[in-house]
Amino acid sequence: MAIADLEKINSNSLYQTLGIRLKTAAQGSARSSLQPCPEVCWPFSGQPHGGILFTLLDTTMAWAVFSALPQGSNCTTIDLNIQYPEPARSDIFQCEAQIQHRTGRLCFVKGKIAGSDQELVATGEAVFRIIQTPPIF
Amino acid sequence: MAIADLEKINSNSLYQTLGIRLKTAAQGSARSSLQPCPEVCWPFSGQPHGGILFTLLDTTMAWAVFSALPQGSNCTTIDLNIQYPEPARSDIFQCEAQIQHRTGRLCFVKGKIAGSDQELVATGEAVFRIIQTPPIF
Amino acid sequence: MAIADLEKINSNSLYQTLGIRLKTAAQGSARSSLQPCPEVCWPFSGQPHGGILFTLLDTTMAWAVFSALPQGSNCTTIDLNIQYPEPARSDIFQCEAQIQHRTGRLCFVKGKIAGSDQELVATGEAVFRIIQTPPIF
Amino acid sequence: MAIADLEKINSNSLYQTLGIRLKTAAQGSARSSLQPCPEVCWPFSGQPHGGILFTLLDTTMAWAVFSALPQGSNCTTIDLNIQYPEPARSDIFQCEAQIQHRTGRLCFVKGKIAGSDQELVATGEAVFRIIQTPPIF
Repeated sequence: MAIADLEKINSNSLYQTLGIRLKTAAQGSARSSLQPCPEVCWPFSGQPHGGILFTLLDTTMAWAVFSALPQGSNCTTIDLNIQYPEPARSDIFQCEAQIQHRTGRLCFVKGKIAGSDQELVATGEAVFRIIQTPPIF
Repeated sequence: MAIADLEKINSNSLYQTLGIRLKTAAQGSARSSLQPCPEVCWPFSGQPHGGILFTLLDTTMAWAVFSALPQGSNCTTIDLNIQYPEPARSDIFQCEAQIQHRTGRLCFVKGKIAGSDQELVATGEAVFRIIQTPPIF
Repeated sequence: MAIADLEKINSNSLYQTLGIRLKTAAQGSARSSLQPCPEVCWPFSGQPHGGILFTLLDTTMAWAVFSALPQGSNCTTIDLNIQYPEPARSDIFQCEAQIQHRTGRLCFVKGKIAGSDQELVATGEAVFRIIQTPPIF
Repeated sequence: MAIADLEKINSNSLYQTLGIRLKTAAQGSARSSLQPCPEVCWPFSGQPHGGILFTLLDTTMAWAVFSALPQGSNCTTIDLNIQYPEPARSDIFQCEAQIQHRTGRLCFVKGKIAGSDQELVATGEAVFRIIQTPPIF
């Protein structure tokens, strides 16, 4: 995925609103970061809501899947289980996701999020369905 | 929970940014709605990102738990499993959550989200930990 | 599902080994019970292992799905999230499961297990895939 | 964990009934195997029920946790999410589990199961609670 694509992707309104930035996505793996906008740090001061971390994890997993699909295919989350081992106290968060297994129609993915001190703040696993609906980007 | 409280709660920056509104929270149950802001409808046009639906579910579950706690206590998500049975095609979404079981330190909660035609677009179950950290609101 | 079928189903080696008995399965819902064999009550004396409760939940969910499928179809678990709110202290357990939503290829199911005093000992939600592989029974 | 202990552990009635064998458990990691007894291979011929794979995963995770606890402590599963990427076609299965993060009262664990051809047949993540109740073994 070329840098030009990344810049276009990262300019989408969802990422801009939350503070997400995709860094790489290739061959079934993806990495991204979150510098949470102050608006989404609630109800605990300075901490992004757990749903924002979830969004970071889910979208990074989706890029991991998307990077392994033929052109014209896309994916959608069927199920995602997320765990929060520690409070999300950091200025920036790093997320990474990898495909664990892929069948014809389904993709099993895992991922995790760490704060700047490498402490694990979220981990998850998901099942994605491979579909033909084109996305906006 | 009095209407005055609801108005104050619903003015928080996270809810305003995403389009969430808490409607009731009492005795271990809560109901809320989502009129997704256009910015969070990505990558499928007109559909809130799955992470926004997750945030709606998670925060509604948290209110269900919070409504059953003594003053001074709060809660935080340990684990949440979410399923997406159908694409989230609706102008407004309704969410409801209920405590299933509570022990001294843990609370087991379930919830779901439906579109305006009552179709189920998300369902989930979670474990919350009961803590003493005060929230912002 | 006629009683004759139930008797045949309940004579299978897995159910006999663990202590499971299917009671009803029709129109997307199923009910079953577990009188755990002493061999599977380990490592806590008198309590079935959590994996045995999981097996009860998973198989009851599968019957709920199966009861709604056309002849010749079958189903297989893709993902199941189980929670254990309380220790499984009971002589007999009752399990019930219902389809929440069904698409062409997937089925979203929920279920729970209670002890003889109605206390919730396990709850879960799952995604099943609808397949054509014939089962043994 | 000495071999003597392993032999004693592996003689428990649950493991003998299902075909489970613990191989190692130390410093937050554990490995085990399953040679499924024919009785628990149902409803698909020659394949252990998904609940038996779950039991293997859950018990291996529990040993991973247990291996990191001080003497006198034990653990119990609060939540476990399991995925089944492929049908469980193998004569023997290998399972491994590792602690991902531990707080005072909770332990977050991941694990997976592969067949003899290394193909992933199950993967999962769980939250365990640390307790003081003594187990049987």
